[in-house]
Amino acid sequence: MSPSIETILQQLRQFRDERDWAQFHNAKDLALALSIEAAELNEQFLWKTAESANPTRVREELADVLLYAVQLADKYGWSIEELMHEKIACNAEKYPVSKAKGTATKYDEL
Amino acid sequence: MSPSIETILQQLRQFRDERDWAQFHNAKDLALALSIEAAELNEQFLWKTAESANPTRVREELADVLLYAVQLADKYGWSIEELMHEKIACNAEKYPVSKAKGTATKYDEL
Amino acid sequence: MSPSIETILQQLRQFRDERDWAQFHNAKDLALALSIEAAELNEQFLWKTAESANPTRVREELADVLLYAVQLADKYGWSIEELMHEKIACNAEKYPVSKAKGTATKYDEL
Amino acid sequence: MSPSIETILQQLRQFRDERDWAQFHNAKDLALALSIEAAELNEQFLWKTAESANPTRVREELADVLLYAVQLADKYGWSIEELMHEKIACNAEKYPVSKAKGTATKYDEL
Repeated sequence: MSPSIETILQQLRQFRDERDWAQFHNAKDLALALSIEAAELNEQFLWKTAESANPTRVREELADVLLYAVQLADKYGWSIEELMHEKIACNAEKYPVSKAKGTATKYDEL
Repeated sequence: MSPSIETILQQLRQFRDERDWAQFHNAKDLALALSIEAAELNEQFLWKTAESANPTRVREELADVLLYAVQLADKYGWSIEELMHEKIACNAEKYPVSKAKGTATKYDEL
Repeated sequence: MSPSIETILQQLRQFRDERDWAQFHNAKDLALALSIEAAELNEQFLWKTAESANPTRVREELADVLLYAVQLADKYGWSIEELMHEKIACNAEKYPVSKAKGTATKYDEL
Repeated sequence: MSPSIETILQQLRQFRDERDWAQFHNAKDLALALSIEAAELNEQFLWKTAESANPTRVREELADVLLYAVQLADKYGWSIEELMHEKIACNAEKYPVSKAKGTATKYDEL
């Protein structure tokens, strides 16, 4: 069975504190770290089709993105489930089915 | 009470299918979308200290990053809890406490 | 004396063609490669102040960003000097001195 | 006729100083700004093939990337022509024709 997000958070806090890394983890650098991991994720697809990327590498890089996302949310005291839930509702307003169906156009050009 | 990740996934799949967006959601473009949202998250901290960023905006952009991360994991049929759990163990090996304590040096230069 | 941008372009085209890499260099992947190099540039500043980054590493990563930027411009047949010159004029309109002086606020919130 | 890189630099310094923006332009935030513009460039290709991106928008976003790259180089007192020239020679060593021909494999896996 998978561990819960709460268990993962506890592991991450322990990991950070054992290494005395809280001193580096301000929100600006956590966000920067996240975007660097996002680029490493994208590197798995560079010069390739989606299908020819190596799933093992994609999985590792996606995990790193998620670990920083969870730590950034924790820095602000947010639940990732709540903030995702909230944003889905917000995106539903920005992209009404009647306008957005079948098109990849951005909301401000719909 | 917060919804579970599984509930959020179901909402995301419904959101996508109502808009007929599965056609755009190949893994390469999902990863690209994630990194674009990561940049919008970073924009909240641009020319600023970590403390002077607007938390409401940070929250929205972090949510968008997470929503694409969850959808990319779903594309491969992965549980985000499992892949994070696995990566924490892997990072613990890359960054042993004895070497990494108190330093932000990257693992390949430790 | 520094080589001209035109000389650099000729070197880049020769470099690409000797390796038979034109097949990979579509505009979408060139832009993606550029953003991956931009992340590697940012990694030099991660968990650090601007002053404590290693200038030699910054220089190398900035060079990689520039090399992809120049190749992407060349893909479209654009002169980088012209497109920069044009954009400075455009930015001067978006950020009039009277409104933008001393503030880092984005143009759409000025 | 296109202006020279030197002329563009003078325009950029004047643009910055008229707005009193030098206070924001530390190397870390300039690099961050560059990567945010790189993401806006990539957004032009999101959910699309390379060919279906809008060249006018690509041109504008690429210009913004270049303007920050030039300003970051200027911050360190570097000539962009020199650093590109130097890096082409360095990349030629990392990617020898005999190994790299016709393959997009990264140098550390060649």
